[in-house]
Amino acid sequence: MNTLDFTKNETGLIPAIAQHYQTNEILMLAYINKEAFQKTIDTGKAHYWSRSRNTIWLKGESSGHVQKVKEILVDCDADTVVYKVDQLGGAACHKGYCSCFYRRIDGDNLEVIGEKIFDPEKVYNK
Amino acid sequence: MNTLDFTKNETGLIPAIAQHYQTNEILMLAYINKEAFQKTIDTGKAHYWSRSRNTIWLKGESSGHVQKVKEILVDCDADTVVYKVDQLGGAACHKGYCSCFYRRIDGDNLEVIGEKIFDPEKVYNK
Repeated sequence: MNTLDFTKNETGLIPAIAQHYQTNEILMLAYINKEAFQKTIDTGKAHYWSRSRNTIWLKGESSGHVQKVKEILVDCDADTVVYKVDQLGGAACHKGYCSCFYRRIDGDNLEVIGEKIFDPEKVYNK
Repeated sequence: MNTLDFTKNETGLIPAIAQHYQTNEILMLAYINKEAFQKTIDTGKAHYWSRSRNTIWLKGESSGHVQKVKEILVDCDADTVVYKVDQLGGAACHKGYCSCFYRRIDGDNLEVIGEKIFDPEKVYNK
């Protein structure tokens, strides 16, 4: 798969935006390397690279909130992708919100506008 | 404005996703530093950091296809933003498409699925 350019920065990572395939809501942004991308293609489930844990990460591994990838879009420079996904469990954010972008800037403040779907304590501390 | 965390990587850059404020179509992804972000807040027009030219960049400076920012969303880690924008001229991509994500992966190929709005030669070589 030579469709993407992973050489743009020295980390070998490019951003992947997860977008709900029906509503077009942007759910999250994470990073992928070549291997995470290939695993996504092979399994149909979104895989990312965790910059904090330095490892490949199957989204939903702990929570069960896997992202089934319906379609992958590529930008003009081939250094960013959009995963159009079906978000199992209805929430992408580890804080329990449908989208990681659950806040908006309101002057000097951040206003919560997102819908909380689950309680993180119940999902991650089973 | 201390709402965003520009310290996550040593470049001081974070990704900004431009999304159409009405259709939710993802138009492009580019990078911002603190100054580009502040200019966006101050002017209401999307500014980015050009990694190739090493300078602040007003989107639409050459083409006139400015992005009027209606709302800014912030993710859970405060290191990615979504600009909900009104895209003047109807096209965000310098190749003339509505969205930079005008191709989708189809096996080993990239299939063009986006709508071409303008001819880049006519817009950039006036």
